Amino acid sequence: MINGEKRTAHPIRWAMVGGGQGSQIGYIHRSAALRDNTFQLVAGAFDIDPARGKAFGTSLGLEPQRCYDSYQEMFAAEALRVDGIQAVSIATPNGTHYAICKAALLAGLHVVCEKPLCFTVEEAVELRELAVSRKKIVGVTYGYAGHQLIEQARAMIANGELGDIRIVNMQFAHGFHSEAVEEANPATRWRVDPRFAGPSYVLGDVGTHPLYLSEVMLPEMKIESLMCTRQSFVKSRAPLEDNAYTLMRYTNGAMGFVWSSAVNAGSMHGQKIRVIGSRASLEWWDEHPNQLSFEIQGKPAQILERGMSYLHPSALLDDRIGGGHSEGLFEAWSNLYYRFAIAMDATDRDDQEQLSALRYPDIHAGVEGVRWVENCVRSADAGGVWVDYQ
Amino acid sequence: MINGEKRTAHPIRWAMVGGGQGSQIGYIHRSAALRDNTFQLVAGAFDIDPARGKAFGTSLGLEPQRCYDSYQEMFAAEALRVDGIQAVSIATPNGTHYAICKAALLAGLHVVCEKPLCFTVEEAVELRELAVSRKKIVGVTYGYAGHQLIEQARAMIANGELGDIRIVNMQFAHGFHSEAVEEANPATRWRVDPRFAGPSYVLGDVGTHPLYLSEVMLPEMKIESLMCTRQSFVKSRAPLEDNAYTLMRYTNGAMGFVWSSAVNAGSMHGQKIRVIGSRASLEWWDEHPNQLSFEIQGKPAQILERGMSYLHPSALLDDRIGGGHSEGLFEAWSNLYYRFAIAMDATDRDDQEQLSALRYPDIHAGVEGVRWVENCVRSADAGGVWVDYQ
Amino acid sequence: MINGEKRTAHPIRWAMVGGGQGSQIGYIHRSAALRDNTFQLVAGAFDIDPARGKAFGTSLGLEPQRCYDSYQEMFAAEALRVDGIQAVSIATPNGTHYAICKAALLAGLHVVCEKPLCFTVEEAVELRELAVSRKKIVGVTYGYAGHQLIEQARAMIANGELGDIRIVNMQFAHGFHSEAVEEANPATRWRVDPRFAGPSYVLGDVGTHPLYLSEVMLPEMKIESLMCTRQSFVKSRAPLEDNAYTLMRYTNGAMGFVWSSAVNAGSMHGQKIRVIGSRASLEWWDEHPNQLSFEIQGKPAQILERGMSYLHPSALLDDRIGGGHSEGLFEAWSNLYYRFAIAMDATDRDDQEQLSALRYPDIHAGVEGVRWVENCVRSADAGGVWVDYQ
Amino acid sequence: MINGEKRTAHPIRWAMVGGGQGSQIGYIHRSAALRDNTFQLVAGAFDIDPARGKAFGTSLGLEPQRCYDSYQEMFAAEALRVDGIQAVSIATPNGTHYAICKAALLAGLHVVCEKPLCFTVEEAVELRELAVSRKKIVGVTYGYAGHQLIEQARAMIANGELGDIRIVNMQFAHGFHSEAVEEANPATRWRVDPRFAGPSYVLGDVGTHPLYLSEVMLPEMKIESLMCTRQSFVKSRAPLEDNAYTLMRYTNGAMGFVWSSAVNAGSMHGQKIRVIGSRASLEWWDEHPNQLSFEIQGKPAQILERGMSYLHPSALLDDRIGGGHSEGLFEAWSNLYYRFAIAMDATDRDDQEQLSALRYPDIHAGVEGVRWVENCVRSADAGGVWVDYQ
Repeated sequence: MINGEKRTAHPIRWAMVGGGQGSQIGYIHRSAALRDNTFQLVAGAFDIDPARGKAFGTSLGLEPQRCYDSYQEMFAAEALRVDGIQAVSIATPNGTHYAICKAALLAGLHVVCEKPLCFTVEEAVELRELAVSRKKIVGVTYGYAGHQLIEQARAMIANGELGDIRIVNMQFAHGFHSEAVEEANPATRWRVDPRFAGPSYVLGDVGTHPLYLSEVMLPEMKIESLMCTRQSFVKSRAPLEDNAYTLMRYTNGAMGFVWSSAVNAGSMHGQKIRVIGSRASLEWWDEHPNQLSFEIQGKPAQILERGMSYLHPSALLDDRIGGGHSEGLFEAWSNLYYRFAIAMDATDRDDQEQLSALRYPDIHAGVEGVRWVENCVRSADAGGVWVDYQ
Repeated sequence: MINGEKRTAHPIRWAMVGGGQGSQIGYIHRSAALRDNTFQLVAGAFDIDPARGKAFGTSLGLEPQRCYDSYQEMFAAEALRVDGIQAVSIATPNGTHYAICKAALLAGLHVVCEKPLCFTVEEAVELRELAVSRKKIVGVTYGYAGHQLIEQARAMIANGELGDIRIVNMQFAHGFHSEAVEEANPATRWRVDPRFAGPSYVLGDVGTHPLYLSEVMLPEMKIESLMCTRQSFVKSRAPLEDNAYTLMRYTNGAMGFVWSSAVNAGSMHGQKIRVIGSRASLEWWDEHPNQLSFEIQGKPAQILERGMSYLHPSALLDDRIGGGHSEGLFEAWSNLYYRFAIAMDATDRDDQEQLSALRYPDIHAGVEGVRWVENCVRSADAGGVWVDYQ
Repeated sequence: MINGEKRTAHPIRWAMVGGGQGSQIGYIHRSAALRDNTFQLVAGAFDIDPARGKAFGTSLGLEPQRCYDSYQEMFAAEALRVDGIQAVSIATPNGTHYAICKAALLAGLHVVCEKPLCFTVEEAVELRELAVSRKKIVGVTYGYAGHQLIEQARAMIANGELGDIRIVNMQFAHGFHSEAVEEANPATRWRVDPRFAGPSYVLGDVGTHPLYLSEVMLPEMKIESLMCTRQSFVKSRAPLEDNAYTLMRYTNGAMGFVWSSAVNAGSMHGQKIRVIGSRASLEWWDEHPNQLSFEIQGKPAQILERGMSYLHPSALLDDRIGGGHSEGLFEAWSNLYYRFAIAMDATDRDDQEQLSALRYPDIHAGVEGVRWVENCVRSADAGGVWVDYQ
Repeated sequence: MINGEKRTAHPIRWAMVGGGQGSQIGYIHRSAALRDNTFQLVAGAFDIDPARGKAFGTSLGLEPQRCYDSYQEMFAAEALRVDGIQAVSIATPNGTHYAICKAALLAGLHVVCEKPLCFTVEEAVELRELAVSRKKIVGVTYGYAGHQLIEQARAMIANGELGDIRIVNMQFAHGFHSEAVEEANPATRWRVDPRFAGPSYVLGDVGTHPLYLSEVMLPEMKIESLMCTRQSFVKSRAPLEDNAYTLMRYTNGAMGFVWSSAVNAGSMHGQKIRVIGSRASLEWWDEHPNQLSFEIQGKPAQILERGMSYLHPSALLDDRIGGGHSEGLFEAWSNLYYRFAIAMDATDRDDQEQLSALRYPDIHAGVEGVRWVENCVRSADAGGVWVDYQ
């Protein structure tokens, strides 16, 4: 039960890089961070255009002098203040994540970073090692993982309620880019340009979301090999894909499947995960996140509802308002951000016990997302062959 | 589009009465008020138990000396401060709303009050006159009205897309009180005690919610007469009802129907409104608030989605994150609270133009809810006869 | 399990009155009667236009000389044949049911009759007494009652799985007559003319369907009083209603509600029944008849599926193809018709044991439907007052 | 509009091989064939156990002497009668289809055969050539293709309403064989034994169903290459699969996907097809066959309903009862069977015009189903590699 009470002794002094005027993702970061009184926004380098960034920061109520022209300037200037920032969130185009995240860690900051962390596993591992050596948190915003019923799924699977896991079917397949909308909208154009977006479009942009949900629900399962085929239905996007299918073999013999798409015309989100065991299945859909379908073979299907007392305690921890009421994506993100704050605070106090009890998408999750995309692209670019998972 | 930017020059200094430790409704008030940087929580009388209230206020980060033992003490003490509160929210049991609201208005405060405002139309009108004469805002938390698709429905109806309105079917029928749960839970016991709850239970507690939605969607329609029958299926609740049916005749010949229930076993919320015209119908369900069903007779049914560019501009004003993403009840409440703030600010500046352009559940909505319950009870207590609407 | 095997020693020689060229209802009667080899169509008076009726009967494969100009002629001629008809189905406009049914019984025939049997309880009782004294079956085509999950609901309620029954909410509210479509379509014009349709339109035409489902599910419950209000939104239909609300008080303290409508714009059928007990609810919707929702308060909602082994044996008796496969209205009607055949056969053999084990909408159901409409109209025409149920 | 009127001058004299006592599939064949008065059941070899077969045939009302011990005996004996059978339906285990179909064609009979026709493309082509040379119809029971909205999808796609076709996602994934249920049930044991079931289990048993729907909807699209991976989650089923994924590249650059499964625990049927174009998508689900989802990118999603006048004329041809009423699988099968009858009749009269206007799953469809399975197995057995479609 979340009730607005303080989670940490003091709010963490926090800044943003990117996420300025007109950015939806910037707003959701701020909304999530500020929701539970665990972060305090004190600085920002919101925009590649310094004047626009300063105007925007001021409109948020920041002091003008803490609205910086660049992240480099911000990290340097804040380091000199006794009340300087302790953490930073990165909500810039993909191609800049690696450099900013590295600079932030080197500046002694905790980090919250948009996925993907970077473009290669090599870079990701470097960031991980840096975070570990500097004892800093890197939280990655797989925001859907903050929905309470994801915890319920994890608990039910751990409890054996599905039997042996056989199949994990995932999809995140929206239709918003069925046409070449990027041609008219500079704000999305970078997503289909490899220089800024990296080696993939939809695999990284949407496919890694349900993949991370599967990692939360199924912590024991490891991918052994995969095959991926990807397409650019809007031809100007090539070599980046706007549709991809990935098949995975897990080490325990289970099969996984991910459909990633931005050209699923007419679909809103289309993010779903279905975990199938020898006894029963679970299915969750992010457009109606307060429901979880539980289907035992040979029994009536059941609809579990968020916030109900029959759920596992771990699925009730983040309940803000009881069952029947709709919670949404903002609550999911807030649930991650307060965990980020607790993790940062516990790290600073070297409270290993609290840290080990806390689950959130951390630097390891970030590395795994980059790894999956890299393996998918390797398979796809070889013609859709099975590749060992590296 | 809401993006976290400042809506008012300064946050309003704000306090709460009630809504303390363990109160879901208290949390949703705070979450909504603090979301958009329009209110600043500076004081509170959170609990009938002063020590518990002080502990709770402190846990929220308040200064201990501004956590008061009673609302009377708070209103008096804050009035002496230059930085004293400007507004107060009332989240106490029903029986106290009238007195606290009146005291707040007399203390020169703007008010946000839980429904029902009071128990009789006479009291409600008194509060309305007081608010008008003192030039203060009284916002009433019909929270579901903050969902964006309610505005879409209003716009489509105003635009004639349904034809002549014939039927308005409403229900709010959950099952959480199918048993006498109040016997084991003091926190809900007052709801079925007329001394604290007033003349009705479910009519006021749930029925007025979709009724207010109908007032937003159908501002021109007026009730001419109604009949109501109410039941106490859990007998210990008598004379308060846990189930009621209300039929209404509107002055234009249309019919209305409201099913209010707390004993709809197994139902989560069951709040729905269906407006039927000569050409088409609209239906909305609060458990999936991001969808609106639009059914033109003789055409395929349509599902409208929140946040999509095909919506009416008034339905996009409060978009915080685009279509496909789930928004929920917290966003709906926040949308009301920022309107409350703008209304308070505009009132203080005597900005009639801004005030007249702003729609939110105000003191008039509060009066109308009390009026509807009073008429329902009058009909029901006369045996379920049709009564002229007074 | 139905498998096409013979249910009776010989098919019953059967005729139809009405249901000719272009009649949907005629086809569904024939399809249902002929499905299970229990009836053999040998004669008919299909049309008020003798030539058209003869042409149509011939197109069905009948001998021309057994395609009669009128039911009177048919009853007379067939009575003279050794292979004359044994049963007749009546699918004519409402205003003729009484006379044809009476004539058929007097001619020594079993009858299947469209509802309503007639226009007054007095007539209905007369038909009942005639049927009883002549030892003939009168089956009434409340076709939805043949859906297997209706039996499941009955069994679960009888078994106490819902607890004490508190509320029965029903509706049959389509939108096909939102406009005055009868003006352009002579085939439906009689439905809104009291001379042919009787004292009501939607109450009898659609409202009695879910009402009969409630009688099947809840055989013990008796209506004590009711109130009804009805409207003619298409004014030319007055005094017949195209919309009506009925509230009912049962003798055990439960409440019932029926919404009957032909102006629910955009709705397809909108036939639903929800039975609410102190412990759980059941809900069924005729547009998706293979599912039954079972909601225990405080537990996840369950979806029961037709044809599954977890159902009650009585709900599996008529299974024609296992769970997952869609059965529809034609199967429901067929399930009634084979019961009609078994009942006719058992009556002719005076097999009381078989008769008493057989449930189907019989003459008593027909009488009760007429009674309900009569009470509704009496209440509505008195201004929507509560009337004792007579 | 189907109304029970005669479709052919005389019913076709018809027999069955297999489909005896307890066989669901046998019943659905008979129910479909006899529904529209186009076939007359006059003979059968219903069971591998002659006595049981005779008893069953008699229970259906057949003359005992036309209940044969074997199909060989039946074909020989009936050929000697002037009123001998003209057509035969084959509803036996897969391993016998080829021999019986061949024998029937050689005996001068029209055939309706369960899929798969046989186990290899070579055999399938042989049957096709035999059918062509003997001028006989072979209908294949892809029963779902008889649903009216499949025709609507075909018409809308042909009309360009989806834009260029990009993606065809299909699945038929039920959960009924999540456990080794065949061990306790001899009637299903053959399905997982390659001697009787052929080279595949779920690919042929369920996967070919939506594949055929895609062939109906998208007659122009040709598979260029595919890859398939299959699993035996119940190990005793190996080498036959109980789960398989197939990816397909079409010659026009579109992608296809089929998930075939019998271990999708808790799922009823799970047969769905989604066709995605550059402008819009269509989706159909066999458990609710009266609805078709139509989603134009950037517009509200639409739900099309069977039987409504806004549908394409070809989707209304087989309407038996108007929109809102539920039709089901039995109607879909009947719609195929009456086409089979018309095709047989037209073939006998050498009416090429009528034949060319008639669409139904014919011998070519049968060949294509066998071809697809053969290609899938070839890919899967090579380790899940892409293979050219042969």
